[in-house]
Amino acid sequence: MIPKLQVALDVTTEAEALSAAKTLAPVVDVLEAGTLICFAEGMSVVRSLRTQHPDKPLVVDMKLADAGRDLGEMAFKSGGTLLTVICAAPLATMESALEVAKEYGGDIQIELFGDWTFEQASEWRKLGITQAIYHRGRDAQAKGQTWHQEDLDWLQRMCDMGFNMSVTGGITPELLPIFQHLPINTFIAGRALLSAPDPQKAAISFKETLNSLWRK
Amino acid sequence: MIPKLQVALDVTTEAEALSAAKTLAPVVDVLEAGTLICFAEGMSVVRSLRTQHPDKPLVVDMKLADAGRDLGEMAFKSGGTLLTVICAAPLATMESALEVAKEYGGDIQIELFGDWTFEQASEWRKLGITQAIYHRGRDAQAKGQTWHQEDLDWLQRMCDMGFNMSVTGGITPELLPIFQHLPINTFIAGRALLSAPDPQKAAISFKETLNSLWRK
Repeated sequence: MIPKLQVALDVTTEAEALSAAKTLAPVVDVLEAGTLICFAEGMSVVRSLRTQHPDKPLVVDMKLADAGRDLGEMAFKSGGTLLTVICAAPLATMESALEVAKEYGGDIQIELFGDWTFEQASEWRKLGITQAIYHRGRDAQAKGQTWHQEDLDWLQRMCDMGFNMSVTGGITPELLPIFQHLPINTFIAGRALLSAPDPQKAAISFKETLNSLWRK
Repeated sequence: MIPKLQVALDVTTEAEALSAAKTLAPVVDVLEAGTLICFAEGMSVVRSLRTQHPDKPLVVDMKLADAGRDLGEMAFKSGGTLLTVICAAPLATMESALEVAKEYGGDIQIELFGDWTFEQASEWRKLGITQAIYHRGRDAQAKGQTWHQEDLDWLQRMCDMGFNMSVTGGITPELLPIFQHLPINTFIAGRALLSAPDPQKAAISFKETLNSLWRK
């Protein structure tokens, strides 16, 4: 399977989000309303993205930690198809978010931040959770942290446990070969696409690299 | 010190948030734009609460996990004075959020969710963080979990470490005596106030209980 490409619309106004989505939707597989734009504009941006792109998978990056049902309903009613839940959330929250997701034909993704364990991951699998996001945070990145062998080993283990893994944090086409041996489900790119001189061209080059590396 | 009372405006429209704030601001000490309303309406609700209540402490409950500077600036520029950061956030995120908070004369509060350790808490103190929120989540509550001696012991230990503690999760005036021996900084109430037949009267009774229990 060739990994999908997801654009994280990490902008701060609805106009920018819609404009970037319009440019990139013909190339990328998944749109993401990033935490930044969700907090800036509220669910209005999710509704507008859904209207502009009726059939596109749309991640609502709430990183929710509580109130799984209320926040979940908000995200899916607004047009989201995938909802992120932070790994630190109680199991009860994951359970209620997953329940709502299934009611709407959507799904949840556990966002792996800070300290988490494979024992926890195994609990998530038992709840029926099949998606997770391996994350090298923006702030960690700013502090100069890069991708290590340990990251790749953890990713491998999550894949082995049956998780469909998304990968994010400073991902560029040049970085992709280090993941080539892994059955990654989705790569998430934000600035690498949005800040490119020609975002659509950058997305095309990204897709081409994915195709050439994973097609065997 | 008598603990403060904070109302979590856990509603889904700006109109409801402003109306509840108008009713409760004369009684409560701190307003909180809850995660729910922040995601529903975006920072517009924070700006409107600030306009309506120019001098009131205002918590923006983002539970942020990454992008400390960008989300922090968004919250403080919109009029927030306190910003929540999830305990699972990397130290780099807490550091950048705290830095932004100080630039705006505000502060951050670490929201204790899921698994966290006193070793981590000690790292937070080293960064200069002095506020945290002890949280029994809404979903945990729905699953019938109540307050235990263990919760009180952990709260005591966080107070001993020098944290100004806020406490939240199904707090009612009837429950307050179990916390009476602790120097709690703030109690956060949501539904106990918002869903009361007379919210202002409920807040007054809450304040009276706080005054009578902690005044010595």
